[in-house]
This record gives sequence, C-alpha cells and structure tokens, in this order.
Amino acid sequence: MKSEHTIRRRVQFYETDAAGIVHFSWFFRYMEEAEHALWREAGLSIHPEQSAIGWPRVGASCEFHRALKFEQEFDVTIRVTEITKRTMSYACEMTQAGQKIATGTLKIACVSKFPDGTMKSVEIPEDTAMRFKPSETTDPRPPASDLL
Amino acid sequence: MKSEHTIRRRVQFYETDAAGIVHFSWFFRYMEEAEHALWREAGLSIHPEQSAIGWPRVGASCEFHRALKFEQEFDVTIRVTEITKRTMSYACEMTQAGQKIATGTLKIACVSKFPDGTMKSVEIPEDTAMRFKPSETTDPRPPASDLL
Amino acid sequence: MKSEHTIRRRVQFYETDAAGIVHFSWFFRYMEEAEHALWREAGLSIHPEQSAIGWPRVGASCEFHRALKFEQEFDVTIRVTEITKRTMSYACEMTQAGQKIATGTLKIACVSKFPDGTMKSVEIPEDTAMRFKPSETTDPRPPASDLL
Amino acid sequence: MKSEHTIRRRVQFYETDAAGIVHFSWFFRYMEEAEHALWREAGLSIHPEQSAIGWPRVGASCEFHRALKFEQEFDVTIRVTEITKRTMSYACEMTQAGQKIATGTLKIACVSKFPDGTMKSVEIPEDTAMRFKPSETTDPRPPASDLL
Repeated sequence: MKSEHTIRRRVQFYETDAAGIVHFSWFFRYMEEAEHALWREAGLSIHPEQSAIGWPRVGASCEFHRALKFEQEFDVTIRVTEITKRTMSYACEMTQAGQKIATGTLKIACVSKFPDGTMKSVEIPEDTAMRFKPSETTDPRPPASDLL
Repeated sequence: MKSEHTIRRRVQFYETDAAGIVHFSWFFRYMEEAEHALWREAGLSIHPEQSAIGWPRVGASCEFHRALKFEQEFDVTIRVTEITKRTMSYACEMTQAGQKIATGTLKIACVSKFPDGTMKSVEIPEDTAMRFKPSETTDPRPPASDLL
Repeated sequence: MKSEHTIRRRVQFYETDAAGIVHFSWFFRYMEEAEHALWREAGLSIHPEQSAIGWPRVGASCEFHRALKFEQEFDVTIRVTEITKRTMSYACEMTQAGQKIATGTLKIACVSKFPDGTMKSVEIPEDTAMRFKPSETTDPRPPASDLL
Repeated sequence: MKSEHTIRRRVQFYETDAAGIVHFSWFFRYMEEAEHALWREAGLSIHPEQSAIGWPRVGASCEFHRALKFEQEFDVTIRVTEITKRTMSYACEMTQAGQKIATGTLKIACVSKFPDGTMKSVEIPEDTAMRFKPSETTDPRPPASDLL
C-alpha cells in the first residue's frame, strides 16, 4: 500500500513565461506527474486504455512560495491524505535545493464513463482502493508565501 | 474603476486530454486570460515591456463541476474580491450553456524585480490600484461538484 | 467549398517563454486553431464525438520570421493547398501589424480508428472532401527569416 | 565536442489529446528538451540568466509516423547536422520500443538581444561553436508515415 511518492524533475524551457519563471499553471501538471508516478509505484495506471472508469479532478489548489527557473532541478512529493468511497485527496510539496517552492492539493473522483461522453460518480473499485493508504504525516500549515 | 469582466472562449483541441475533456490545468489559464482582459479593460497591461514590477501568483484554486469538451463555447467571468496594499484577489466562474463548469480563485502579489532575477513584495502603485474596485457581488458558496 | 480562412488571435501570457516571446511550439497550435475554424466555416467539426474516423497530422513545418510578444494581436490565415484521396495539406501564414511573423505547413491523413486504439489510413469521406477546394493562390517562396 | 544526445521520456497525461494520443505540438517540445540536454552535456546552458545572446528557432519540421500514448516511454535522439557562422541545425528521431515514431528538424539562430526587446542575428561565439561538431551519421530519407 502506497502513501507517498517523490519525483525529481528539471524545468523545461517551454514551462517558463515572459516573467522568466515557471508559469503557475505548470505546478498543477507537476502535481499530476507525481500522482501518476505514485499510481505506477502502486502497480496501477490511472488511465488504462479502454477502461470503463476515469478519475477527473474535482478540486485543485496551489500556493506559490518561490519562483522556479529554467533548468533548475526540483522535487515533487505527493501524499495521499484521504480516501473516501468515491474520492481520493492528495497534498503535494515542491522543493528546490532545500527550499519550499510550492504546496498544493488535488482531489479526484472515481467516475463511470458512458458511451455518450457523460460521467457519473461511482465507488472506487476495491482493487484500486487497497493499493493506497493515507499518509500519517501531518503537515504544519504552510507558511505564507515568501513573495509576500 | 473595474470590478469584473467576462470573456467568451472556445475549447481548442490541444486543450483536451485522452479522457476526451479539457485538462484541468487549462482552467487556470482560462482564469488568467480573463484577468489580463480585465486589466486591458481597465486601461492597463499586467506585463508591460521593461516594467520594474511584476505580478506573480501566490495562490490559485479551482473546483471542477462539469467537463468541457472540444469546440464548446464557454464564458469566464472574473471579479476582483479584495485589494490589499500588496495583493489582489479574484474569484472566477466558468459557465457553458447556462451550466456552471468551474469556480476558482487567484491571488497575485505586486513585486519588484531585481536584475539578478529575484523578486521582492512591494506596494501596489497608486495608479494601478485606482483602476480596480472589489466587486460587491457576494457569491453563495459553490455547490459540490456535479461529478460527486 | 472553402479554400481558406483567417482568424485573429491575441498572444496569451502562458504562450510566452523566458526569452520574452511566444514559444515556437505555439505556432503549430495557432495553425491548428485556424484549421479547425476553417472546418467549422465549412460546416464540419474535425473531431465530432463518437466519430469512427480521425485526422492525425502526418507532417508539420514552420519558419519563424519575427518574434511575437505578450498581448500582440495577429492573424493566422490557413489555405488548403492539396487534397488527395487520403490526405489534406495546408499552408499557413501568420502576420502581425502587416509584418510576416511565420509561415508553415500541415499535412493531415484520414484514418479509421479501431477499438484497440490503432489507426489505419482510409479514403476521405465524400461529404468531407466536397466541402474543401485547394486555394488557387500561389505563394512566392517565403523569404529567409528576418532573424538571419 | 558533442554531436548527438539521447533522452528517455515518458508520455504525460497532459500531453495527450481527445484523440487519445500525444498532440503533435508536443513533438517539437520533445525535440527542444533533447536539444537543451545536449547543450548541458556539452557543458553549456542555452539560456543562461542575463545572457546578451539568445537562440530563437528559425525553422522546425516534423513527420509523424506512429502515435504515442499515455505512459509510453520513448527515446529522443538529437544530432547536430550543420553549424554555420550564425546558425545551428539539428535532426531528431523519436522511437518507442524499436519503432520510429517521428523524425524532425530544428534550425536555430544566434541573436543579440537589445534592451527594447528586438533581436539581431550575430555570429555564434567561438566558445559555443567549439563545443559542437556536426554528426557524421547520414540518415536515409525517412520513410513515408505509417499513417499513410
């Protein structure tokens, strides 16, 4: 049973913007990269081909503490914080050279996908739920952004 | 003095993902598009060339209620919710054909940019602050996602 | 029968990179936006839900003449240059304030999509082919980039 | 002196589109990732902070042979094909499980950046040019796309 996972990642040029730093939308993609790597560590794919269920995000948030720049290497640690009948929640921390860059959350729902493209919330399959366990780490509330 | 602005937008193919819907990271970009359009309506650019100040995001959040699909047209309404000495906050609502798609928030800080690339929080210039006024609309708390 | 179409577009902040200009990968997305708008003008969607056929790109190229910057408005004109039994080709020109920014090409193939995710080249359906006609405009070969 | 470099990469979910495959614009980003890794292997950064020169792309092309899907691992090999006084050209090959996925080219120009944001072609600095050497590999012309 997996509770958390860390990936190391380097900032790509196309992730930067005209302010010379990583565009804030990318932090949500970094979190998702870590989430999908966590699922692979748990022996799963979050999006197998032809699957009848899916995992849309129902909520996401991020606080940005410091800027990331081109070619910097950084770590993304994702932790499972809660598993309910129909949802999973994560907390995520991004650090670079020992400094906190950003902290975020993701909440995903298990849905059944119909041929017409609609989705309906369903219970998480047992053989998925059994692969994850909420982390026992308790985070202190993140400090205010260093940009403030 | 501007308090809110709405843009109409069509989903582009590159914004969709293998689940057949807009990838969640795009909603943060939609919010930013509306924010920058609001600034233009207020007679400003949020990133004029050679400017000594910048406006990094210090926080962002989004709740996703329904999926958006390729070629759908939708509206993004952004409202100023608070202006402090050094920050501005917004609330954002995305709707499609009368249905709520997503609701989000953005908080930005005014910073001074140094030649070495570092940033330091500074007070919002008076001639910027005077262009915006917090919206008096009060939102009911958004309902839980329809995906739940 | 449609041969060409022009869209007007404004540079978004997330399309810029740390060089302060639009990242080159975006020009391919701009071309695709114009292509899909051309199809809508022809009364079609290039990706209707549940469609048994698809239109992957088999080739794409772009020459970059001048830089585009945040908030600049520019035009993207796409022209059908050739329709064969199984492919369509386009030429594209991007201009800003009367100056050539970039010129490109796209070639797409009509494919049948199988349940296992594989694709196989097929003939373009008659009711699609009849909506388009190659443009009679002949472009002078684009000049060398102004960046050279 | 470096002539080529290969990176291994996994397809991220946000790189896929509603056709269930990697969006074609991403292949240009994959090429750039390999290019920047090649520069790092040569002991250089293509975009050091405060640099007075830059390397905009003046041309890019790609032919797409097979689709890439979520979570597939693939290789990107970039080779220097030509170095002139003011430009560098590369050829790129992307393969997955021994199969050719895509082949592309990039051509970049060395430019001087002025405070007003304009760029002007300049000669490649000697200490940059001396780190690279055109590859002696000669590619057979790539076969037509397997999608045709």
